[in-house]
Amino acid sequence: MCGIIGIVGTTEVASALYDGLTVLQHRGQDAAGIATVDGARLRLHRGNGLVRDVFNQKAMSQLHGRIGIGHCRYPTAGSEGAEEAQPFYVNSPYGIAIAHNGNLVNTEELRRQMFEDDRRHINTDSDSEILLNVLAHELQIQERMALTPDHIFKAVAAVHARARGGYACVSLLLGYGVLAFRDPNGIRPLVLGERVTDEGHEYAVASESVALDVLGFKRMRDVAPGEAVFITNDGQLHTRHCADGAVHAPCIFEYVYLARPDSMIENVSVYKARLRMGQRLAEKIMRECPDHGIDAVIPIPDTARTAASSLAEALGVPFREGFVKNRYVGRTFIMPGQGDRVKSVRRKLNAIDLEFRNKTVLLVDDSIVRGTTSRQIIQMARDAGAKKVYFASAAPPVRYPNVYGIDMPSVTELVAAGRTDKEVEQVLGADWLIYQDLDDLVWAVQDGNEELTQFDSSCFNGEYVTGLDEHYLKQIELLRSDDAKAARRDV
Amino acid sequence: MCGIIGIVGTTEVASALYDGLTVLQHRGQDAAGIATVDGARLRLHRGNGLVRDVFNQKAMSQLHGRIGIGHCRYPTAGSEGAEEAQPFYVNSPYGIAIAHNGNLVNTEELRRQMFEDDRRHINTDSDSEILLNVLAHELQIQERMALTPDHIFKAVAAVHARARGGYACVSLLLGYGVLAFRDPNGIRPLVLGERVTDEGHEYAVASESVALDVLGFKRMRDVAPGEAVFITNDGQLHTRHCADGAVHAPCIFEYVYLARPDSMIENVSVYKARLRMGQRLAEKIMRECPDHGIDAVIPIPDTARTAASSLAEALGVPFREGFVKNRYVGRTFIMPGQGDRVKSVRRKLNAIDLEFRNKTVLLVDDSIVRGTTSRQIIQMARDAGAKKVYFASAAPPVRYPNVYGIDMPSVTELVAAGRTDKEVEQVLGADWLIYQDLDDLVWAVQDGNEELTQFDSSCFNGEYVTGLDEHYLKQIELLRSDDAKAARRDV
Amino acid sequence: MCGIIGIVGTTEVASALYDGLTVLQHRGQDAAGIATVDGARLRLHRGNGLVRDVFNQKAMSQLHGRIGIGHCRYPTAGSEGAEEAQPFYVNSPYGIAIAHNGNLVNTEELRRQMFEDDRRHINTDSDSEILLNVLAHELQIQERMALTPDHIFKAVAAVHARARGGYACVSLLLGYGVLAFRDPNGIRPLVLGERVTDEGHEYAVASESVALDVLGFKRMRDVAPGEAVFITNDGQLHTRHCADGAVHAPCIFEYVYLARPDSMIENVSVYKARLRMGQRLAEKIMRECPDHGIDAVIPIPDTARTAASSLAEALGVPFREGFVKNRYVGRTFIMPGQGDRVKSVRRKLNAIDLEFRNKTVLLVDDSIVRGTTSRQIIQMARDAGAKKVYFASAAPPVRYPNVYGIDMPSVTELVAAGRTDKEVEQVLGADWLIYQDLDDLVWAVQDGNEELTQFDSSCFNGEYVTGLDEHYLKQIELLRSDDAKAARRDV
Amino acid sequence: MCGIIGIVGTTEVASALYDGLTVLQHRGQDAAGIATVDGARLRLHRGNGLVRDVFNQKAMSQLHGRIGIGHCRYPTAGSEGAEEAQPFYVNSPYGIAIAHNGNLVNTEELRRQMFEDDRRHINTDSDSEILLNVLAHELQIQERMALTPDHIFKAVAAVHARARGGYACVSLLLGYGVLAFRDPNGIRPLVLGERVTDEGHEYAVASESVALDVLGFKRMRDVAPGEAVFITNDGQLHTRHCADGAVHAPCIFEYVYLARPDSMIENVSVYKARLRMGQRLAEKIMRECPDHGIDAVIPIPDTARTAASSLAEALGVPFREGFVKNRYVGRTFIMPGQGDRVKSVRRKLNAIDLEFRNKTVLLVDDSIVRGTTSRQIIQMARDAGAKKVYFASAAPPVRYPNVYGIDMPSVTELVAAGRTDKEVEQVLGADWLIYQDLDDLVWAVQDGNEELTQFDSSCFNGEYVTGLDEHYLKQIELLRSDDAKAARRDV
Repeated sequence: MCGIIGIVGTTEVASALYDGLTVLQHRGQDAAGIATVDGARLRLHRGNGLVRDVFNQKAMSQLHGRIGIGHCRYPTAGSEGAEEAQPFYVNSPYGIAIAHNGNLVNTEELRRQMFEDDRRHINTDSDSEILLNVLAHELQIQERMALTPDHIFKAVAAVHARARGGYACVSLLLGYGVLAFRDPNGIRPLVLGERVTDEGHEYAVASESVALDVLGFKRMRDVAPGEAVFITNDGQLHTRHCADGAVHAPCIFEYVYLARPDSMIENVSVYKARLRMGQRLAEKIMRECPDHGIDAVIPIPDTARTAASSLAEALGVPFREGFVKNRYVGRTFIMPGQGDRVKSVRRKLNAIDLEFRNKTVLLVDDSIVRGTTSRQIIQMARDAGAKKVYFASAAPPVRYPNVYGIDMPSVTELVAAGRTDKEVEQVLGADWLIYQDLDDLVWAVQDGNEELTQFDSSCFNGEYVTGLDEHYLKQIELLRSDDAKAARRDV
Repeated sequence: MCGIIGIVGTTEVASALYDGLTVLQHRGQDAAGIATVDGARLRLHRGNGLVRDVFNQKAMSQLHGRIGIGHCRYPTAGSEGAEEAQPFYVNSPYGIAIAHNGNLVNTEELRRQMFEDDRRHINTDSDSEILLNVLAHELQIQERMALTPDHIFKAVAAVHARARGGYACVSLLLGYGVLAFRDPNGIRPLVLGERVTDEGHEYAVASESVALDVLGFKRMRDVAPGEAVFITNDGQLHTRHCADGAVHAPCIFEYVYLARPDSMIENVSVYKARLRMGQRLAEKIMRECPDHGIDAVIPIPDTARTAASSLAEALGVPFREGFVKNRYVGRTFIMPGQGDRVKSVRRKLNAIDLEFRNKTVLLVDDSIVRGTTSRQIIQMARDAGAKKVYFASAAPPVRYPNVYGIDMPSVTELVAAGRTDKEVEQVLGADWLIYQDLDDLVWAVQDGNEELTQFDSSCFNGEYVTGLDEHYLKQIELLRSDDAKAARRDV
Repeated sequence: MCGIIGIVGTTEVASALYDGLTVLQHRGQDAAGIATVDGARLRLHRGNGLVRDVFNQKAMSQLHGRIGIGHCRYPTAGSEGAEEAQPFYVNSPYGIAIAHNGNLVNTEELRRQMFEDDRRHINTDSDSEILLNVLAHELQIQERMALTPDHIFKAVAAVHARARGGYACVSLLLGYGVLAFRDPNGIRPLVLGERVTDEGHEYAVASESVALDVLGFKRMRDVAPGEAVFITNDGQLHTRHCADGAVHAPCIFEYVYLARPDSMIENVSVYKARLRMGQRLAEKIMRECPDHGIDAVIPIPDTARTAASSLAEALGVPFREGFVKNRYVGRTFIMPGQGDRVKSVRRKLNAIDLEFRNKTVLLVDDSIVRGTTSRQIIQMARDAGAKKVYFASAAPPVRYPNVYGIDMPSVTELVAAGRTDKEVEQVLGADWLIYQDLDDLVWAVQDGNEELTQFDSSCFNGEYVTGLDEHYLKQIELLRSDDAKAARRDV
Repeated sequence: MCGIIGIVGTTEVASALYDGLTVLQHRGQDAAGIATVDGARLRLHRGNGLVRDVFNQKAMSQLHGRIGIGHCRYPTAGSEGAEEAQPFYVNSPYGIAIAHNGNLVNTEELRRQMFEDDRRHINTDSDSEILLNVLAHELQIQERMALTPDHIFKAVAAVHARARGGYACVSLLLGYGVLAFRDPNGIRPLVLGERVTDEGHEYAVASESVALDVLGFKRMRDVAPGEAVFITNDGQLHTRHCADGAVHAPCIFEYVYLARPDSMIENVSVYKARLRMGQRLAEKIMRECPDHGIDAVIPIPDTARTAASSLAEALGVPFREGFVKNRYVGRTFIMPGQGDRVKSVRRKLNAIDLEFRNKTVLLVDDSIVRGTTSRQIIQMARDAGAKKVYFASAAPPVRYPNVYGIDMPSVTELVAAGRTDKEVEQVLGADWLIYQDLDDLVWAVQDGNEELTQFDSSCFNGEYVTGLDEHYLKQIELLRSDDAKAARRDV
């Protein structure tokens, strides 16, 4: 996952981009970058780390301009280096910078085209650099000097025709303005906002509406699937649908885990959706085990807290914050790979023994991916004296890889892949394990906006809206295994 | 506030001190340090910043030894510099390092004695350096070569006789072991734990029990008021009460705000105490305004969440997390002084409008100090569409300075100083303001351990258990005003 | 001035580039960079500062590959930023990186062409970026896929046709090899070397032959004016003259000051040339003032030492190192602008009083530019007790700007501009001032290689071999004044 | 070796200390530090690296005060860590900081006394910390409150009685002033200077007179052997001889290599002494080999240049700078231990082939220690085409360890230890090797000040003026071998 933001303002814009990125930081803490337009020059600063660590006073003071874009990156397969921090930039044609959230699934084909047809060198493994060069090429073959919104939208349509996958992008075209666009299925989110100042209208696009909120922009609407938004340097807004006939299928995992609760995505409040997930899960519990005997509902902080609180309310059982999160975990053991993960949970969470002793507790998490953490947390609950430990997941079993920008582990590392719920229960060591049903999850989101008829739920059901070839999935498997990651790091 | 920890282990101890400091980090994020005993040598590393920023691989690799102490610092009046990061060290006698949480109230007198009688140079404004030198002096006048636990406890008794205030300390005596002690009134907390390994017994002392939990130490008990604990280099535990006749009066603000919820202080669960605060506050609300018409109880995250949840439960009103905290706030505006504080709340909190629109909401915070933040939050609730905004404080009005280690602002900056509740209500712009009664707060803590008969509640009632001279209070006022802080920074 | 180097090797090449840059460091201490070809990827690291400060272990370990180029930069007008450290890179076509020493004099025209005809964005003020894009454009319009040496040489010929000025370049063409070329007049130096290893032939090009020496490469010859050298990835050497009819006019200032004494440029030993400068100057002194009464010849270290020693020998006067250079000058006062320069000489040089007291001394410097330093040094000699202070310059008066890559001050700051020798003598406060004649300087160099018939001596005689329009000179004046520099820094 | 400086000024003194240290930097490039007296507070900044790297704007701005001391450190046995950068500080009594150049030879005994008698903890392996604590202890047992110059000089006398070795020290006594003293034999240099300003007299002491020169202080005289100089806070100068009957025996190696040529030590110009070394060496050459057939005298830069120039003059042979030093050597291979040293010479020196080809050359170095470098340089001369390579050392054979502060390698690593001159000639691969005679070296220095009757020439003749026990020499051997150094670094 990544967070993106773009602003065409009337005054200096760097600190707004910075603030916006800090509230999108949950979407990616691995690297960050900002590019601004300073007269005829592109200003760019990026680096590995949190927004607050990447930018200092000196860096900020270079980022002049009232037009700019920003990016924060989650580490995905093959993009760990600092040189792969975004925004990316090419100088031909015009000077174009891009910030991208998502993932393409036909990169190999595009990469070949770039080399053979366009003689454009791709210097990283990042699909974002490919997307940038596809866009650059399509702009380059438009009319030469007087680039109009019409030419730009034609180029975006050509990008849609060539690129497959989930992507939300914001791009600087030097001398012209900011261009934002979203994949034809609308898998990744993108929202458009507006602010009226004494100097005139300002527009912003961002991955989530919280970025608009914090900057005082009014959320206008989501950018539509396949739509392109072009804001000229002088603040004129142009929009056009650049792809036809595709199904609208937003990523349901945004509601489960990725997005901030205070965001509105596709006109659905993430917070409300999570409350509804808790309600439905409570109903399922009552159906399956009316005499559950649960003494306390205990969330795994932070994401699961919302669903857990409505679940507790619906069950009529006390809600207790039995686990306290350590907000200052240090670096020593923040190391990838299974070995370290085992040890690390105790450093991140601490149990309040009194809330567990001799109780039947229901632990609630937003989802279960590897299961490693869940197993340790269940053990912590037992160590704290729990009589019985039940475990609920606000999402269905995760059984398939995500290929649209969420860096799930390889299938062999997903605890639910190839296992029944009972088998997972055993692996986790829970006395009872209960998963949300996919229909209930869909309802919990859909209830906020009935126009949403389909979602990308591929990690739950293995159905990929863009289509996929077998080869690609195998490659993903290879790239994402812990062994593969360790190998890349060692190089 | 500060966090302290000390360990006499059987194997290398630096990473345990590091991990322990990360879970004490909430007590002080301004500076951190670790000192270890490496053979005949003291190893020391300290600096400004979070634990995770102060220590890197290189620094850690120097901190050899199985005995050590650690410290994390909250910025208090006159201790902003990196040179005032703790532990402090003097080389005569023996080599002594100290980490200190608390504040002395007779520093001026002690400072003069140090200079005139002991010819010891105090190079900082920190009272911790004074305390270290008092200890050093008292050890120096003990028997020369064969320092026994008895000599050490005599020195601590002499320290108690000279130093007045709240202090919990852990100290390295080179060649001897780790010495920990707590002021005669037991104002600041200190807890003792034990771990049995294959190599033998290990002991640890820490400001809060969470540090023991995370390291797998078993909490034995709190260090008693006036007690000294001396663990020799070879792991022998010696303890003695070194002060007589003093009242036991732990700081009640630890339960209100300072401590982590998962800590046990004086055998009272902080989490449970906060739940009880919420219950009592609900009872007061029902008494004073049975027809309150509250639609939702909304906590100011994070500390108030516990009390707010039990309060909501007791009122039978939905608990809603209407404010979402931005966990990645950046640096640009983290600046002290009133002007910036006004702007900064919006960057730290975001309101979920749907939870406020057309509702009567009760916002709950743990306490109200300056009132600046509360006023802005109330305004945010209104901007989000709330019909009425009530505000509850889980603690009574803060009207007096704290002199035992909590860096409250000067009295003139405390919103409740010299104001009635109604007047504060007006200043904050709330439709209704309700404070916890002090008796109820005391009950909420005491209910966990009936042996506690008295507390330091001085910031609520102005009663100082150690006694105070007028002059000292005036000086504190001068040091703590924002103007004074700004002036110091400019120098 | 800048230093450049390129190597096509048989094994890892980064540390050789690093070592090569350290011996070219005298040509530019402002910024440094290395680019290597790592499989299909370009690796690039660059930054402000000395080579030894820009590269650390981590940076070096990223610079994989057996093919690479390097650059060290002298600060020239408008290129102070870190983003303007070289090598520069564009990704279309092929991926091209360039390192450039020199300066173009028709940048404005080229910049306009880039924008209007090629839609290539130039993001810095550096003429090197323009040169890179001219090269990129000329390569782009060659045959598409099967780029041959012939195509590449055609592109270089087109660059020569478009670019005017002094330039020596080394460039990476991803997938093809290393391309080096030199301007048609051969103003800036470039030398080609070869090393035979067990794995095969290796080739290197560099600004000066010392870089070849230190790496164990055998100097083959200078790259000829207008010649291009292309070494394919597999080590095949191709060369071609790509410009016809231009006069060969190497920069004479390389011999006076810029180059290291141990370099061979155009088959002339710089050290020997400087010895000859001293001899001719001695002859002039004998002619003009046979009864000079000089007691000691004292060089201004370091460059002038060579000429001063032969001068002393020829005069039969003792050579004394009366000034000692401080090699560790600190930062406090290394600040630009006249004010600070006045103070700074004493921090850089110290006089040995005994060598001056009651003597008639002849101070020798390589050249006199602003005169500020000379004036202070003369005063230091007087303060040290000299009876009479004579001053000799191994080069003629500097009266005109250099436009081919040497960052001379603006004409108004050149002490000799618009002044007779007598007037300069007065400004400097010397008892006698003597300049080398230009004919003698030319002879001193030419005597090493009689094929050299012409030099770029423009800063002495104002004759510019490439031609210049008035407008350009005026612009240079504006950019180079101290006021202009200060203004840029303040922005 | 180290460089020290101390100033009692009338205005802010930090930048003067900084500038002074930069001209003493040749005495130690390993670490640097400055301590100042800011009212009642000691300000201290120190770290590993060159002066210009250790101090930045922020650090300098903290170093308030008009009284201060500074230190630059050469790495000696057991003092590599940053924590062992000087000045050192103890807070009892008074607060004392010290900067020390030299070495004690009875550290083991003093270390034991510190622990047993004084209970003072020594936390490093540095003898400077021991010396500081001896001084502190001797001051502590003086009269309590009214410390007079008389008390201070008594304490220094007691230090002289206890400490054996070579040492020059400058010390801050908080509340009192600056104290400087020199060992009874005057082995290490220390010079006193004075500056008259509008605000009053200022005094400075420094290792070498160049530091006074650059700061505009007038050199008054050397501090005498065993003398103490105490300058009170208000600028009163007190001096006293605190040791009787010791022989004055300054280190002769200061003149050979350590000191800057522009320094005056014991009223002898180092530059002149080196010129005389060259003259005497020429005479020996003429005696031993009148038909030497030398075509050129070539110095190994930089130190040997002075002696080589007078040698060439005396021989009537051309002086040629055939080797050029690379002033920007990078880090890659600056690694200790024999293996790397072999490779590194080529990176530091480059030969001008034309000056060697078919010539009989005499290479001149100031001294020969390990011989490794000399052997490689001789080989370089041969590679450059020399017909015959003669080698001259301006100092006699180095055969014994230095124990007074110069970090010579262990005896087994000294090429001349246990070898005749002929054998060394063979090891080095020279066609002829000629050493200066010790008598000639002594004359060359003594000729500048006939009052000097004795020198510490121990590394040439093995005679130690302070006396030494066998045990100490063995220990030194162990500590200084390359293996021992490598082992310490690996820890």
